[in-house]
Amino acid sequence: MNIVVIGIGLIGGSFAKDMKLAYPNANIIGIDKNESHTTEALELGIIDEKGDYNVLASADVVFISIPVNALVLELPKILDAVGDETVVIDAGSTKSLICKVIGNHPKRRNFLASHPIAGTEFSGPSAAINGLYDGKTNIICEVEKTAFKLQERALELFQKLKMRIRYMNPEAHDKHIAYVSHLSHISSFMLGKTVIEKEKNERDIFDMAGSGFESTVRLAKSSPEMWTPIFEQNKENVIETLEEYIQNLEEFKQLLLNNDFENVYEEMNNTNRIKQILKGIPLTKS
Amino acid sequence: MNIVVIGIGLIGGSFAKDMKLAYPNANIIGIDKNESHTTEALELGIIDEKGDYNVLASADVVFISIPVNALVLELPKILDAVGDETVVIDAGSTKSLICKVIGNHPKRRNFLASHPIAGTEFSGPSAAINGLYDGKTNIICEVEKTAFKLQERALELFQKLKMRIRYMNPEAHDKHIAYVSHLSHISSFMLGKTVIEKEKNERDIFDMAGSGFESTVRLAKSSPEMWTPIFEQNKENVIETLEEYIQNLEEFKQLLLNNDFENVYEEMNNTNRIKQILKGIPLTKS
Repeated sequence: MNIVVIGIGLIGGSFAKDMKLAYPNANIIGIDKNESHTTEALELGIIDEKGDYNVLASADVVFISIPVNALVLELPKILDAVGDETVVIDAGSTKSLICKVIGNHPKRRNFLASHPIAGTEFSGPSAAINGLYDGKTNIICEVEKTAFKLQERALELFQKLKMRIRYMNPEAHDKHIAYVSHLSHISSFMLGKTVIEKEKNERDIFDMAGSGFESTVRLAKSSPEMWTPIFEQNKENVIETLEEYIQNLEEFKQLLLNNDFENVYEEMNNTNRIKQILKGIPLTKS
Repeated sequence: MNIVVIGIGLIGGSFAKDMKLAYPNANIIGIDKNESHTTEALELGIIDEKGDYNVLASADVVFISIPVNALVLELPKILDAVGDETVVIDAGSTKSLICKVIGNHPKRRNFLASHPIAGTEFSGPSAAINGLYDGKTNIICEVEKTAFKLQERALELFQKLKMRIRYMNPEAHDKHIAYVSHLSHISSFMLGKTVIEKEKNERDIFDMAGSGFESTVRLAKSSPEMWTPIFEQNKENVIETLEEYIQNLEEFKQLLLNNDFENVYEEMNNTNRIKQILKGIPLTKS
């Protein structure tokens, strides 16, 4: 089996590592516009060889994990170059624009729009790990537009990765993910900014970071190269979540100003049920 | 050595466990207004016996880990009851009010105001763990007001816990901690609230939580009983941090509205240096 991974960072590199475990005989070819990434991936044994778009015609599987602004430009060219029996899977964090861009492509049936919800705050080939996708959710959009045989091949791979599959339309995906992922990143970046601005002495931040700051600000370590185009493509949903978040912060501030500590307590108490939600045990039916 | 721990939850229980390791012959007495906590702590072997304020007169060390609203009420009574050679250490997350409340107490010299910056989002005796304080910072306020011999005894305990000591005045402590801890908790609680409000189907939150939401919202699991009085006592500083945070979020939203993605990138790129700060390697001198 020929597996081509385009974009050998954390996401693509981790995919490649697990594919090698699942299919020891697979030939894994890496493509990256950053030559140092493919070189490093080769040294780390993450890929078997370097390639370019000429290898796509004979690929069984193409996995694309590049920033979403590059994705909308490259996917049409990639589809142009693949064979009739190649399945092309993306890992983009936005889905509406990409599905629109290739909506009328003659090889639309070769493409499976997916978003594996997995990652860490680190990036690059050296951040790639085995098992990154284990137990994680993969959201697949417009599955009906992918050729059935190619769907099957992709799902077999996802099963090897031990991913849980959810089907969603691209618009619903982008709306949900704005709340659960994109807003988290902005809240974390702005928290980091607020603290850095104030605490001129960085030693103080470090000394006091045990107080919960470290986990809350973890996402502020994320790559701006990856996140700027995500916010651009999902701008409308992201602004909506930001407005609601700011509104909730304003209301909380008002409770403090009014010395309404009973409702300060209630606000936190109501939100505590996030514990059960994250355990996967819904407390209320909807 | 007689060690009395008042408030046997995560903080007090973890202190008791490490004291038992460091001083196997110490007698550890637990006091808690919640009878089930001392019973559970006894069953778990965290304390050797239950007690009440009558045991304070013969205590060598008293460690108080109760919500800060209870602390300002109880500390004067505790100081009334201790012996002349007892050192009383608190673990409150606010320091100004408590130092003011006992500023003129006849046994002020028996008290060491401290804030061990350690914790998890869990609470209760069963959350107590060994090594919670290892490598963490303990902020000590107004050290000059504690009798020298009692300072020494307290510092020996902190050394056994492997804590790093920082000295600060109570006002500076409350200001710094508002940024690095209190704001993190509010940003996390309000993030949780925003997502729960929007995502009526809690299964969707759970399925997508791998996307960074889980760590960012971790602090929203924290105890409202503990946090409401902290926000009350540190209200002015907390409101100031909230205003700056909201301002930064507004500015970020404006950049998105203006399609100014160059500055969206710059904002994130500048904040990325939180990586180095949290590693304890300041990039800039101040």
